[in-house]
Amino acid sequence: MKCAILSIGTELLMGQILNTNSKYLSEELNNLGIGVYYHHTVGDNPKRLEALIRETFKNVDMIITTGGLGPTQDDLTKEIISKVFDREMMKDEYSYGKIRDYFNNRKKIMSKNNIRQAYMPKNSIILENNYGTAPGFIIDDKEKIIICLPGPPKEMKNMFNDQVMKYLMKKAKNYIYSKTIRLFGIGESLLEEKIMDLIENQENPTIATYAKEGEVSIRITSSSKDEDEAKYLVNNMIKNIYEKVGQYIYSTDNEELIDVVVKKLKEKSLTISLAESCTGGMIGSKFTDIPGISSSFDRSLVTYSNMAKEEELGVKKHILEEFGAVSRQTAESMAMGLKRKTKSNICLSVTGIAGPDGGTEEKPVGLVYICLLYGKTMVTRRFHFSGDRNKIRTYTLLSSLNMIKEVLERG
Amino acid sequence: MKCAILSIGTELLMGQILNTNSKYLSEELNNLGIGVYYHHTVGDNPKRLEALIRETFKNVDMIITTGGLGPTQDDLTKEIISKVFDREMMKDEYSYGKIRDYFNNRKKIMSKNNIRQAYMPKNSIILENNYGTAPGFIIDDKEKIIICLPGPPKEMKNMFNDQVMKYLMKKAKNYIYSKTIRLFGIGESLLEEKIMDLIENQENPTIATYAKEGEVSIRITSSSKDEDEAKYLVNNMIKNIYEKVGQYIYSTDNEELIDVVVKKLKEKSLTISLAESCTGGMIGSKFTDIPGISSSFDRSLVTYSNMAKEEELGVKKHILEEFGAVSRQTAESMAMGLKRKTKSNICLSVTGIAGPDGGTEEKPVGLVYICLLYGKTMVTRRFHFSGDRNKIRTYTLLSSLNMIKEVLERG
Repeated sequence: MKCAILSIGTELLMGQILNTNSKYLSEELNNLGIGVYYHHTVGDNPKRLEALIRETFKNVDMIITTGGLGPTQDDLTKEIISKVFDREMMKDEYSYGKIRDYFNNRKKIMSKNNIRQAYMPKNSIILENNYGTAPGFIIDDKEKIIICLPGPPKEMKNMFNDQVMKYLMKKAKNYIYSKTIRLFGIGESLLEEKIMDLIENQENPTIATYAKEGEVSIRITSSSKDEDEAKYLVNNMIKNIYEKVGQYIYSTDNEELIDVVVKKLKEKSLTISLAESCTGGMIGSKFTDIPGISSSFDRSLVTYSNMAKEEELGVKKHILEEFGAVSRQTAESMAMGLKRKTKSNICLSVTGIAGPDGGTEEKPVGLVYICLLYGKTMVTRRFHFSGDRNKIRTYTLLSSLNMIKEVLERG
Repeated sequence: MKCAILSIGTELLMGQILNTNSKYLSEELNNLGIGVYYHHTVGDNPKRLEALIRETFKNVDMIITTGGLGPTQDDLTKEIISKVFDREMMKDEYSYGKIRDYFNNRKKIMSKNNIRQAYMPKNSIILENNYGTAPGFIIDDKEKIIICLPGPPKEMKNMFNDQVMKYLMKKAKNYIYSKTIRLFGIGESLLEEKIMDLIENQENPTIATYAKEGEVSIRITSSSKDEDEAKYLVNNMIKNIYEKVGQYIYSTDNEELIDVVVKKLKEKSLTISLAESCTGGMIGSKFTDIPGISSSFDRSLVTYSNMAKEEELGVKKHILEEFGAVSRQTAESMAMGLKRKTKSNICLSVTGIAGPDGGTEEKPVGLVYICLLYGKTMVTRRFHFSGDRNKIRTYTLLSSLNMIKEVLERG
């Protein structure tokens, strides 16, 4: 099936908002095995919209639209589409009731335009909107299919996941199952090399790798007439991938590294404190992003200046002078100073040169030491990251989390 | 002039990357007074690309393409376009020299595909690429214009700003001048209310407001045959806006709040230290994002637990018990404790309830106290932010920076 995604909204053409809907739908549709051939965007203009729909249907079997369903847009999308498919508009009582309840619950008055939101092209499949007032709909006339979704990403995504997915699976008489594995410590090209035979022989399930700063993920998607078989195919592929690159995998459930670390800390009822230098509070900020972290996270001493390292962590002046602020000795001294002050089970320190200035031949930009104390264990690692200041700090953050994860898995 | 933006790349249709180019170009073109009527995206497929270009030119005078110029894509875009405009491909010696130098400097070998990147449709205006190997080009045949830019956003933006802008201004025989004012502490709707007469009577310059978490900006754009007049029109409008909302403006040069604060700290050779609780290191992280901050930023003590507040900042147990960790008394005690430890000129503390749990009727989620010490000045402010955990923490960060900015302007 050939598909096009059509975004409707003048604000997109003005550059006021970013079109994240097309990306989202493309990824999901490709996962379902539906080829996306075009993205089009047009403004809230009836003539241009109608012409573009007619033109696009010359090249594809299915169009998914987003936007143009709101009460202020005069139901532009619906009216044009009912015209293109030559169908009357009819009041949908269920949608009407839902819109009325929405306003009653908020003690707001329902306008004429809101009532018009309950009018739908005859014989269309209505898609409920659980996060807003505008319902969506599907027209399937055997030859051509159009699926109309609201523009706000939250409303669109939920409607797609809860209702459109099922429709498309049923249509394809296929069950689709997908899982995302996350890895740390391996680059995308090395990963692809290691699982090359799996990638080259892929068919069902399919395997796609994605890279983003310092992390890689693998999305595995199967399709089958049978739900159990679809699941088996994916889980079996995960087993094969584990055999090849298991040591880099930290989640088979698309979790973030910080979530995996915090889950482990909570499971083991452990607490953590930090001593940060080049990250300047980033690691602390990452932990405290998580609601309810106060039972696990005690403090982070961001000792950016040498003076602060001496005063807050008791790093000796002679260590700073002899080995420098960015050295194994300073990192270890920072962690031990932190340990003396706190009762935390895990104490982690980082010190490094984030650049762009401050590097020397001996100690280049990107040099980072991380030291971790846990019980009687001390692990110190030296890294040399490349990239700009932001990248170096991000890699330092992720490597710190990964060291914590590793020590928790072992201990 | 009617314009369409055409993005070329299968990775966009697969949903692997987000199309930020179309948004960027739309905003810039609208600022130049050029109407954008369509965004189209098509994959690396010669037939579909050619058909789409021909179809699009039925509706617009100008197409800007991005992507499809890279060495691995077989110069797809260039070949199709030279076909559509019926022009031969010719080797551009200047582009060839630049590509050769690029590889020589990197001690890499130039492939045949790289050499093909120097071939351009005859009589086109060549656009230099200062951030990559693929040059862009413009074909202007009086009736129709096509402007071809590379896909990577950094290469595309620089080529557009440095070269395409000038071409378009010359074409329009108009000079365009634009400035962005940034404001803090006022919502978008209140701002629009206060400058309503300016917005309603806008013509030249035009005024557009944008909102993003906690901040608002106003973009003012003029066009004139005369450069000095264009600048005068914008600067005069800024004067008018200053009269109405001057107290909220922190930059007329589109700077971030953190940049304004750091600039002021450096001008006055002042240092700063922080005591953070609910922000967990975010404020420290924001300061240390800035290269060369070490002369101004000393430390941040992230005292998340009450124990840490007592041990690191000397907050008395009875204050924590009587008034609570989130109270004016605790915030002030944190700042004073910090002041006793550091020699920093400015000491700032924050404590608050970021949620989603931990709120009570008396102390709801979003309650935040910020205390600032500067010389003999102590300023303590109570805030009640709404939104989720992330929003509350971001507002706390921005409000902290704004308090520092205010005290530096006064002192």
